[in-house]
Amino acid sequence: MSYATPSGAGNQKETPTMIAASKVNGSRVCNAAGEALGSIHDVMLDKQSGHVTYAVMSFGGFLGIGEKYHPLPWHKLTYNEAYDAYVVNLDKRILEDAPSYGTSEIFDWSANRHNIDEYYGSTKPPLM
Amino acid sequence: MSYATPSGAGNQKETPTMIAASKVNGSRVCNAAGEALGSIHDVMLDKQSGHVTYAVMSFGGFLGIGEKYHPLPWHKLTYNEAYDAYVVNLDKRILEDAPSYGTSEIFDWSANRHNIDEYYGSTKPPLM
Repeated sequence: MSYATPSGAGNQKETPTMIAASKVNGSRVCNAAGEALGSIHDVMLDKQSGHVTYAVMSFGGFLGIGEKYHPLPWHKLTYNEAYDAYVVNLDKRILEDAPSYGTSEIFDWSANRHNIDEYYGSTKPPLM
Repeated sequence: MSYATPSGAGNQKETPTMIAASKVNGSRVCNAAGEALGSIHDVMLDKQSGHVTYAVMSFGGFLGIGEKYHPLPWHKLTYNEAYDAYVVNLDKRILEDAPSYGTSEIFDWSANRHNIDEYYGSTKPPLM
């Protein structure tokens, strides 16, 4: 797993506030202390409004073994210029217990979107 | 140039209103009559808000020869379910004369964003 900006994403010189969607994928995600949590695997867009609704994060895994995708509402991510990364200010345990799917699984957004919203909408820690 | 949804874009079953950013790229773009104009090469995101600001369209070209990228404000695109494509309701000539760059050029967004906004903000046809 590499946290570097993917190469070959296009011949564009971006502004400090704007990024090509093809380059968001692969962006680093860290916690409020700047510690690496993972990276962005993909982002989900609302077709009509053009608003990013969810980020699909790639957490953990070593050489791809045990890697999982964690979809979470976009508003849980804040872009931090100093870190040049997206910050997710959530306890690691909350992220670990969150809805996720294996990299070889097919994730059904229609069926599962509700669970994601419900999980992250609550500020209570998940049931153990 | 292919209009098919790119394969390998991820193992996700999407909803009718949501699409993975990695799949937007390659989406068909047509005019109000449903005639093909080109496809979406990439979309530009505002890092903070997560809003799509521009679509970079790929117009024309035959086997890649003469292909050009045309950035245009996202609000000029409307997703049309019947066409399963984004509709740009602009005269083809306006699009042809719009700011564009070659596929091997480096596009500087900071320097050129203003020109794009100005060009499409105006409803007047471009000077010939």
